Amino acid sequence: MKSVVLDDPLLSGFPTLFPGHVWLVGAGPGDVGLLTLHALSALRQADVVYYDGLIPQDILSLTSATLMYAGKKAGESCRQDRITQDLIDAARAGHRVVRLKGGDPLIFGRGGEEMRALHAAGIPCRIIPGVTAAQGAAAYSQIPLTHRDYNSAVTFLSGHQAETLYGEAWHDIGLRSPLLVLYMGLKNFDKIRLRLLEVGRCPSQPVAFISAATTPHQETVFTTLGESLSVWPTITSPAIIMIGQGVEPAIRPR
Amino acid sequence: MKSVVLDDPLLSGFPTLFPGHVWLVGAGPGDVGLLTLHALSALRQADVVYYDGLIPQDILSLTSATLMYAGKKAGESCRQDRITQDLIDAARAGHRVVRLKGGDPLIFGRGGEEMRALHAAGIPCRIIPGVTAAQGAAAYSQIPLTHRDYNSAVTFLSGHQAETLYGEAWHDIGLRSPLLVLYMGLKNFDKIRLRLLEVGRCPSQPVAFISAATTPHQETVFTTLGESLSVWPTITSPAIIMIGQGVEPAIRPR
Repeated sequence: MKSVVLDDPLLSGFPTLFPGHVWLVGAGPGDVGLLTLHALSALRQADVVYYDGLIPQDILSLTSATLMYAGKKAGESCRQDRITQDLIDAARAGHRVVRLKGGDPLIFGRGGEEMRALHAAGIPCRIIPGVTAAQGAAAYSQIPLTHRDYNSAVTFLSGHQAETLYGEAWHDIGLRSPLLVLYMGLKNFDKIRLRLLEVGRCPSQPVAFISAATTPHQETVFTTLGESLSVWPTITSPAIIMIGQGVEPAIRPR
Repeated sequence: MKSVVLDDPLLSGFPTLFPGHVWLVGAGPGDVGLLTLHALSALRQADVVYYDGLIPQDILSLTSATLMYAGKKAGESCRQDRITQDLIDAARAGHRVVRLKGGDPLIFGRGGEEMRALHAAGIPCRIIPGVTAAQGAAAYSQIPLTHRDYNSAVTFLSGHQAETLYGEAWHDIGLRSPLLVLYMGLKNFDKIRLRLLEVGRCPSQPVAFISAATTPHQETVFTTLGESLSVWPTITSPAIIMIGQGVEPAIRPR
């Protein structure tokens, strides 16, 4: 705890992170201001924090716990087993353990896998949700994710594994949802775009690429599905991609 | 500011809510611990807070601003215009204005409508995302919203207006998404369930009703689509309804 103090009347009523327990904590999309009070409380109580690759330094600086890097590069799936085992070992050693994940642990965060492994090992765990990247990208680019007049559904979809976009019938269906938010969709965007056109989405449909959402480096580029290939190579990772009606620049105040 | 103090090294770097500006702020699903630091900062800076009906008292107690109730009952759509006008008038009177909404302002929160009206009136606005009810319900019931092995998409859908479930072709499509999270779906659940069976969802598919997610009154009831009508009358509002693979009780620690 280096730079923030919460008065006890509020935080003292918060749950206690006991030795031998693991909390899976969402850190939000990047901006330290999007951390929840529960996440801050968890960081204050932890003995050890296993953190993902995209967690910014100003969030890590909020804890005095031992910091353990638990990031993964693409394809390092065996590493997931090791991270899970590390969490179990740390809990069994009597530590207060926080597993800090970008965004929300249960949305493309593998929180479900870690939770089940912890349960199977008899380790008590608690999950603290966080603002997910789609929400940060929407708010900081002022793009509504739903709208009473034209959009009463939003689908969050992973574009990470290209095979899932082709192998399953329901993916065609998912791709037709009125507003589609792609996570990890940049690498395969050319294939995804083609698939979207194949399933009948109109080339004039609006598209937004939001890079580094909620950070000082955020960049939002608006285009259309038809035109999107020309800007795609200029977009930097990580990026959220929104496709659908209402995805357009907010009218700026005068 | 009655019960919490944030040390300035962190909060002093946060954005300033200027007189004449409006911030649309997500309060999260209910638990005060799911408030973000930006939301807390906004509540500290505000002169006036227009708050929705479901915001709990322990969140409202974090501000010393003038509190204005801006809740709506079902069908009071004309009231939305009045709320928007009140925000504009308060900003024009030079107040620092917070519009505090349950969950996330841009997910079934009418934040998009208010944002556009503020832009049209020339009022600067900022949007602070919040944890939405689906995320709170998932985390506090330990139900993954996505899973690498069986679910790479999740759809949030409003069940509030029954007509939207029948009138548009894409709704059939949306209803087929692997994991469906219904907001405001309790009232029309019998019709929605029938529609889901009609579009081919299996009666054995798992269903969870999560009432009052993240609050001390949270209750989670697990059933199946086939059996769900028998428990439906016992579920209390507000409730999140999850339908799809993986919606099942977490294995509890021994």
